[in-house]
Amino acid sequence: MTIAIIGGTGPQGRGLALRLAKAGFSCVLGSRDGQRASDVAHELCEKLSCQLISGTTNEEAVSQSTDLVVIAVPFNAHEATLTTLREQLSGKTVVDIVVPLAEGDPKAVDMPPEGSATEQAQSILGDTCDVVGALHNVSAHQLSKLDEAINCDILVCGNSLAARQKVIELLEACGMTALNAGPASSARCIEAITPILIRLNISKSFPHKHVGIKIAPPEAA
Amino acid sequence: MTIAIIGGTGPQGRGLALRLAKAGFSCVLGSRDGQRASDVAHELCEKLSCQLISGTTNEEAVSQSTDLVVIAVPFNAHEATLTTLREQLSGKTVVDIVVPLAEGDPKAVDMPPEGSATEQAQSILGDTCDVVGALHNVSAHQLSKLDEAINCDILVCGNSLAARQKVIELLEACGMTALNAGPASSARCIEAITPILIRLNISKSFPHKHVGIKIAPPEAA
Repeated sequence: MTIAIIGGTGPQGRGLALRLAKAGFSCVLGSRDGQRASDVAHELCEKLSCQLISGTTNEEAVSQSTDLVVIAVPFNAHEATLTTLREQLSGKTVVDIVVPLAEGDPKAVDMPPEGSATEQAQSILGDTCDVVGALHNVSAHQLSKLDEAINCDILVCGNSLAARQKVIELLEACGMTALNAGPASSARCIEAITPILIRLNISKSFPHKHVGIKIAPPEAA
Repeated sequence: MTIAIIGGTGPQGRGLALRLAKAGFSCVLGSRDGQRASDVAHELCEKLSCQLISGTTNEEAVSQSTDLVVIAVPFNAHEATLTTLREQLSGKTVVDIVVPLAEGDPKAVDMPPEGSATEQAQSILGDTCDVVGALHNVSAHQLSKLDEAINCDILVCGNSLAARQKVIELLEACGMTALNAGPASSARCIEAITPILIRLNISKSFPHKHVGIKIAPPEAA
């Protein structure tokens, strides 16, 4: 199994590649600049002392993927990237991790007309492809700190239950807690949790950085 | 200081009244049926062996409040209740805890045109009143179980920072962790977390009930 990460040279894509490779999964980073993707992949492999991460162009990365393709581009490239790759993505399971942060204000979202990035992706790609939203709330910092547990439960949404379950299994194999958060419309909430976490991270009156969210059961007082 | 709870005879209102009175705050439950509110208040006072909770009509409850008025009605009564009380609420700080759950499906929200219940309240009440959204994600069950800690951080939002801080202080005085989640538009996310928690609570494959959310700092692996 080979997982493609489109926009894989950014901080979120790099961090995810590290977690996937650490769990034994092969992944290929895609970038508009294939050489840069190859260089970043080499650097990540050195960090892990493994050969599981390679890098190439976005188009070539999709064609090398066996099923799962992660979309990890900045939001301002989201629509154009998906539109360009639409034909190639037919039949794949697309994992969209993009958060529509407002331009110039990471403490707010600026959702697309479809309601969320996940719904925009499903709308662009149509019925031949299952889109799953995931990994929106985990920071690139946390993904990259391999000596720390992921301090964030992963809320997984999408209109196909089977596709959600496939992604939940993958994330759990990487040591994360991943939870079924329902249909793609749940992404309107899930994607918008990120700017609330960013607000707390940069607040002078809040003591922690790189926070995540956890689903918490009842506990004794 | 006396805090009014409009729709205070429902499960969320009762639970909140117990937590407020346990922390020493006086509160008055409002209901369309003043006698029922008085009866429920009597029952809650017996449970706590205190005299801090009374009950009356919604209108009388607002007039007895010193500043804070909590809106805890079902969403289908949200717009009408606020419209009726608009004149009286002028100058008050309104704490909206209402979640716009979809009719017939508690695993989804059906947001009003304003974007969220909190924003709808601010729109109806106008500039003479600060609306703060809070307490959306804590279950009535958890509020009422006084022998259990609240397993949910309270995300507090609203367009007035001073009003947010006032509500955060009140909730912290009740032993809760309350966090500044930004402007009223954050309620589009925060209110929509509740159906995701409800989905998990009723899922056969998820082991917990009455879950909440916690903001989690990084931790060693």
